[in-house]
Amino acid sequence: MGFRLANVDGRAALVTGNDYVDLETISDGSLSSDPMAALQRPERLAALAARLGDASPTGSLDDATLLSPVPRPRNVFAIGLNYSDHAAESNMEPPSTPLVFTKFPSCICAPNSTIELRSDFVDYEVEMVVVIGPGGKDIAEADAWNHVAGLTVGQDVSDRRMQFAANPPHFGLAKSFDTYGPIGPVVVSVDEVGDPDDLAITCSVNGDVRQNASTSGLIFGVPTLINHLSHVTTLAAGDLIFTGTPAGVGGSTGNFLADGDLVESTIAGIGTITNRCIRVGDHA
Amino acid sequence: MGFRLANVDGRAALVTGNDYVDLETISDGSLSSDPMAALQRPERLAALAARLGDASPTGSLDDATLLSPVPRPRNVFAIGLNYSDHAAESNMEPPSTPLVFTKFPSCICAPNSTIELRSDFVDYEVEMVVVIGPGGKDIAEADAWNHVAGLTVGQDVSDRRMQFAANPPHFGLAKSFDTYGPIGPVVVSVDEVGDPDDLAITCSVNGDVRQNASTSGLIFGVPTLINHLSHVTTLAAGDLIFTGTPAGVGGSTGNFLADGDLVESTIAGIGTITNRCIRVGDHA
Repeated sequence: MGFRLANVDGRAALVTGNDYVDLETISDGSLSSDPMAALQRPERLAALAARLGDASPTGSLDDATLLSPVPRPRNVFAIGLNYSDHAAESNMEPPSTPLVFTKFPSCICAPNSTIELRSDFVDYEVEMVVVIGPGGKDIAEADAWNHVAGLTVGQDVSDRRMQFAANPPHFGLAKSFDTYGPIGPVVVSVDEVGDPDDLAITCSVNGDVRQNASTSGLIFGVPTLINHLSHVTTLAAGDLIFTGTPAGVGGSTGNFLADGDLVESTIAGIGTITNRCIRVGDHA
Repeated sequence: MGFRLANVDGRAALVTGNDYVDLETISDGSLSSDPMAALQRPERLAALAARLGDASPTGSLDDATLLSPVPRPRNVFAIGLNYSDHAAESNMEPPSTPLVFTKFPSCICAPNSTIELRSDFVDYEVEMVVVIGPGGKDIAEADAWNHVAGLTVGQDVSDRRMQFAANPPHFGLAKSFDTYGPIGPVVVSVDEVGDPDDLAITCSVNGDVRQNASTSGLIFGVPTLINHLSHVTTLAAGDLIFTGTPAGVGGSTGNFLADGDLVESTIAGIGTITNRCIRVGDHA
């Protein structure tokens, strides 16, 4: 049995159906209310989640303000061109080793927050996001899933003009404007999610399905990414890996995000995040 | 009057001469011992530093274990090719806008720590590092220095093989191996440092001077960088900007770091960090 971890207005909570139970309460104070601390103890979360049927709900998700389930990530890794069809639509060769950049941590925000468009060339990218639990160094592929606290849905919102204006092109800053990294709604443990290597992943804009794929299309799967990254850095609880986006982005069609657009990003077994776009001032 | 802030074994301390005074002690408990919290209050640090002559030293730097003066940075920005002579030796055009990548925060480490070489193609890059104090968004160049807590010395240690193996080349991961981001020894407030736009910056390996320049050579100066970055992200206390390295890196001569090498990185008015290299296992 697994768990679904949410951040309800700054406090870690376990989700059951449409209700949530405050983590500090259900653990009799033995676990912190800080979601970052909770991510270090996935086995405790699973044990507590198994007892949720006996607990009184703290509240309903309908009335809850959900914040980022990983509010203060340290390393935020993002993988470029990790679906063949997206590499093709981008007129790029699929990479032979993982193309790793960052979304600067300040852009990571609440699941259903507003996307503040800073240009007319902003694009959506739905992605499966890996949340590291127990940390480690030089992690073998066979052991990699044991270092995952869970999975969540992410939007790797991207300013294409800035992304490709530079030479050499660099991805990080163009994908790190404030509000360009909504994740959530919850972190779902791997055993709860189904087969993580074959999850339906979709993105629609104003109800029009733009991306529709499966995580089976990842060129570099989660174990390969964890192995690769952990050879370089010692991974720690709350590190994030944006695993890449499938085909269908606006950059390939010229169909960028505009004021008022509603972006819905869904991964089967995890959930949906819904983001309304508003157009604010241009960046320089 | 300014201040020199150190992290002595996990506690914020103000430095005077060769001694240090514990920050929580000298502030009568009104300031936290956490260096990250201290960086939010540079004006308090300056006021306390002005009274250091009356204080009893907590200890001598000779006996202190200095840790990273910014132990848990959130955004770590790094600027590529920001000195013309380094762009030239790298056979790259100087960029027309700042080339921004990251050193993943997990690589930031103590000033005099060991550099664990993971290949035979590891290179040194001395850099002036800006430490953000009061945060902000859309910061004007004229106001930029008011958002700087201070300056410190950094080594942007870089694995050239990984850096240039990929297409498009991506800098972040290759510069983020554990131990590849020593900074320190202290954060020095700008008014204490002299003219930040003309500081001598040098790097020697085993006593042989390899880099010898001035921060006057920066293509994009600190105000320009802060303006540019703050259009994208809301800056916060403890965010770091590695401002780029001048000419003389090993990658241009084939003279890479080897087991036992001693790297000394100095910026006038700030100080020196000294890092011994050891060769450990290869990365994949």
